[in-house]
Amino acid sequence: VLGIVARLKRIVRASVVGVGALLVLALLFVAARLALYRQADDAEHVATKRAFLERLRGLPPPAGGRPSFVVVLFDDLGHGDLGAYGGAAIRTPHLDRIASDGVMFRNGYAASPYCSASRAALLTGRYAVRSGMDHVLQPAGTDMAWLLRLGWRNHRLPAEEITIAEALAAAGYATAAVGKWHLGAASPSLPNDRGFDSFFGTLYSNDQGRPEILEDGRVVEPHPIDQTTLTRRYTERAVRFIETHADRPFFLYLAHNFPHVPLHVADDRRGRSDAGLYGDVVEELDASVGEVVAALERSGAAERTLLVVTSDNGPWFQGSPGGLRGRKMDVFEGGMRVPLLAAWPGRLPGGRVVDEIAAGIDLFPTVLDLAGLPLPDDRAIDGESLAGLLEGRDWVRREPLHYYSISKLLAVREGRFKYHAPHAVLYGNPMDWAWGPMRRSGPWLFDLDLDSEESYDVSARHPAAADRLRAVLAARERADRSNPHGWR
Amino acid sequence: VLGIVARLKRIVRASVVGVGALLVLALLFVAARLALYRQADDAEHVATKRAFLERLRGLPPPAGGRPSFVVVLFDDLGHGDLGAYGGAAIRTPHLDRIASDGVMFRNGYAASPYCSASRAALLTGRYAVRSGMDHVLQPAGTDMAWLLRLGWRNHRLPAEEITIAEALAAAGYATAAVGKWHLGAASPSLPNDRGFDSFFGTLYSNDQGRPEILEDGRVVEPHPIDQTTLTRRYTERAVRFIETHADRPFFLYLAHNFPHVPLHVADDRRGRSDAGLYGDVVEELDASVGEVVAALERSGAAERTLLVVTSDNGPWFQGSPGGLRGRKMDVFEGGMRVPLLAAWPGRLPGGRVVDEIAAGIDLFPTVLDLAGLPLPDDRAIDGESLAGLLEGRDWVRREPLHYYSISKLLAVREGRFKYHAPHAVLYGNPMDWAWGPMRRSGPWLFDLDLDSEESYDVSARHPAAADRLRAVLAARERADRSNPHGWR
Repeated sequence: VLGIVARLKRIVRASVVGVGALLVLALLFVAARLALYRQADDAEHVATKRAFLERLRGLPPPAGGRPSFVVVLFDDLGHGDLGAYGGAAIRTPHLDRIASDGVMFRNGYAASPYCSASRAALLTGRYAVRSGMDHVLQPAGTDMAWLLRLGWRNHRLPAEEITIAEALAAAGYATAAVGKWHLGAASPSLPNDRGFDSFFGTLYSNDQGRPEILEDGRVVEPHPIDQTTLTRRYTERAVRFIETHADRPFFLYLAHNFPHVPLHVADDRRGRSDAGLYGDVVEELDASVGEVVAALERSGAAERTLLVVTSDNGPWFQGSPGGLRGRKMDVFEGGMRVPLLAAWPGRLPGGRVVDEIAAGIDLFPTVLDLAGLPLPDDRAIDGESLAGLLEGRDWVRREPLHYYSISKLLAVREGRFKYHAPHAVLYGNPMDWAWGPMRRSGPWLFDLDLDSEESYDVSARHPAAADRLRAVLAARERADRSNPHGWR
Repeated sequence: VLGIVARLKRIVRASVVGVGALLVLALLFVAARLALYRQADDAEHVATKRAFLERLRGLPPPAGGRPSFVVVLFDDLGHGDLGAYGGAAIRTPHLDRIASDGVMFRNGYAASPYCSASRAALLTGRYAVRSGMDHVLQPAGTDMAWLLRLGWRNHRLPAEEITIAEALAAAGYATAAVGKWHLGAASPSLPNDRGFDSFFGTLYSNDQGRPEILEDGRVVEPHPIDQTTLTRRYTERAVRFIETHADRPFFLYLAHNFPHVPLHVADDRRGRSDAGLYGDVVEELDASVGEVVAALERSGAAERTLLVVTSDNGPWFQGSPGGLRGRKMDVFEGGMRVPLLAAWPGRLPGGRVVDEIAAGIDLFPTVLDLAGLPLPDDRAIDGESLAGLLEGRDWVRREPLHYYSISKLLAVREGRFKYHAPHAVLYGNPMDWAWGPMRRSGPWLFDLDLDSEESYDVSARHPAAADRLRAVLAARERADRSNPHGWR
């Protein structure tokens, strides 16, 4: 018996030593990876960017002068939330009026199904995979931030990327960012580093870490912030900026924190909507848009200003995808197809519902086009100028729409057909990874005209379309591998 | 140096021994659990069941005689797949005719978002949690089967449960099961053990293990089976059974394998549907229903037969949930709300669209009611007889509808309101478990009249409804804990 006890003791001791040694090795590896982590900027393209911006500085304005731009970006607003898009539960009269007086896109897309990636793409005209901003930034110190660091992912928009604000600022625009940034919490990737004269808002989503409000570089309201007044404060800042700068070209980027969770609304608006708190929040956002439009009209800037309203991705826990499949984080339509409205009284033929595909990546080239500015020639710009489409001219999209999830290209759409790569569900839902049977999804070809819910694979019925889009996707994957940043 | 090498050697040796010892212990635990696994039947309730069936044997038929029953159960058919339910991509004239001549339920539900659980509930009138059949049965030898065994889950419908077929057989019905069983691959839980005079079909889903076709106890077609002729062969069997038994009360349970994946269709039907292969498959199923109806009419049984058509859960990879949120395995509506049609020419006032809630659990009490048979009194029957509703009389559902995921009660619906417990998304999507932020979903109260897409929590607007349903859910959870089987 004693011999057995002694042997058991030895085994237990050996176990402790062995497992301990393995743990130490693993910890050393993790610690080294975390300690060595850094994000480098690309000096060569920082230089070519600088040269491009310098070139913009010298350009004369186009005939008729430079227009102003107001971009209102909602966070997690669904394709079916607005009255104009068929929603019946929430009252959105101001947004509906933009839809009925301006241009309403039935096939408008965020460039990614997540926050940071969608914003990086919106402001640079390039899919987020190019800037390595293809994930969701996390506040330093959180578990998720450590995981991203361990995965060696970018933690800020690289300096070499060109934002709309940088281009417009170089061309003499007054610029302001109000609301959520989500593209980095350190220089050279803070809003004021990236072309915005002023910034007022949060660096992350309103549920991440300990939200605080910054004005330019300073924290003006530490955690915990009053989220019930966020929309009102953003609106006031936006209105004041418009009123102060109405006599010159300006760019206002109003990126609301809502309807991202946690939901908060002004006290006097709580309980008003049939659709509960989410509805209250969206109705306050609608009223905010009404105030922005009123400020444009009052200040006389409306007829010199392109107003664009959209969302960074589809709805998350609440919010309606409007009958589309999937939600935020999915490459199904519900994750990326969002409300997209544009108005420019007197310039855009109004009251139009447009079926052409338009996406967040198109904003950069559209804005530069309308401002009479060239595109940079050192890099691929994935978006296409919508100027012709907005102005009611014949317009044909040149490139298919690409649906990325993190850095994976999972689907492409051209016209009515959307092709999902095999395992397309995988990245939206890890259950597919965890559970073998789920992996058999895709490849799929959906005919979105017939089946907006992405329910019927028609690849056998339309083999040529399936082959073509499969080849488009494969070619893009190859290009992404060989030149992920799209340098020229 | 030699000292360090010797020490490293000792550490490596210790590691191997230590990790090895831990692995051996874990394996011993797993092996013991797998070896000791068994599923016991409940002798007491096997006896009370026997007494109940004995009692049925002695009962005289009701005035007008006993009707026949045909239940057609599809596998993974979506709420939006049929023309009658708004689907535009697939042609389903025979099912649409049943909808227009008979009774169409707009709020018809499967009793579970999965196969086995839904079938157990359908055939016993009790939520699957009562029989411990709340998961998806897996063929012996597969990884998933070992996992279920490790989790000590039931691998067959317990002997003490009473199926519709057992009750009807006791009352003198001819009974047949054609198609997928999925309630056990061993006695006393094979179809022929559970009240069916005959069985022809598969014991599992058509994607599980190595599918083979059984006739009664015998394998008549080993793996690999010809799945392209499955629907046709099932239909022929069903038609033959009707023709052979038209002169006496009969019960036909026709549980098609499709449109569960992998999709297969008769060669002469391939490529016909606009909705691709899925559409071809559903169109063949529709034609099958047409042949069953024709057989009922031809044989003169139609006016003595209640025909019920439904699905075991919502659509999976393909198939349309008809704009509802979620799919198979979700407790969102898309996972459980399914087509539900009933017809009985001459008896049911036809051409009715019914908004009352009806579910798979209601079939058992409805059938027994119409056959003039009492319910067992030793156990809770969760369903309610729909006889009054079907016959056009005033009818009010007594109990809320319960949405279980595995053994977890995640939501309840009463009238227009549906309450989701906190973490409701968790069991439908393990990402919520893996990733903290996702856990903040729920509790939610959805007003399905306003918002069939389950997008707007209105608990603050309807606090009394939220409180009531929260209490209903909590009370049911308590009852399930104290008396999971619902014995009386």
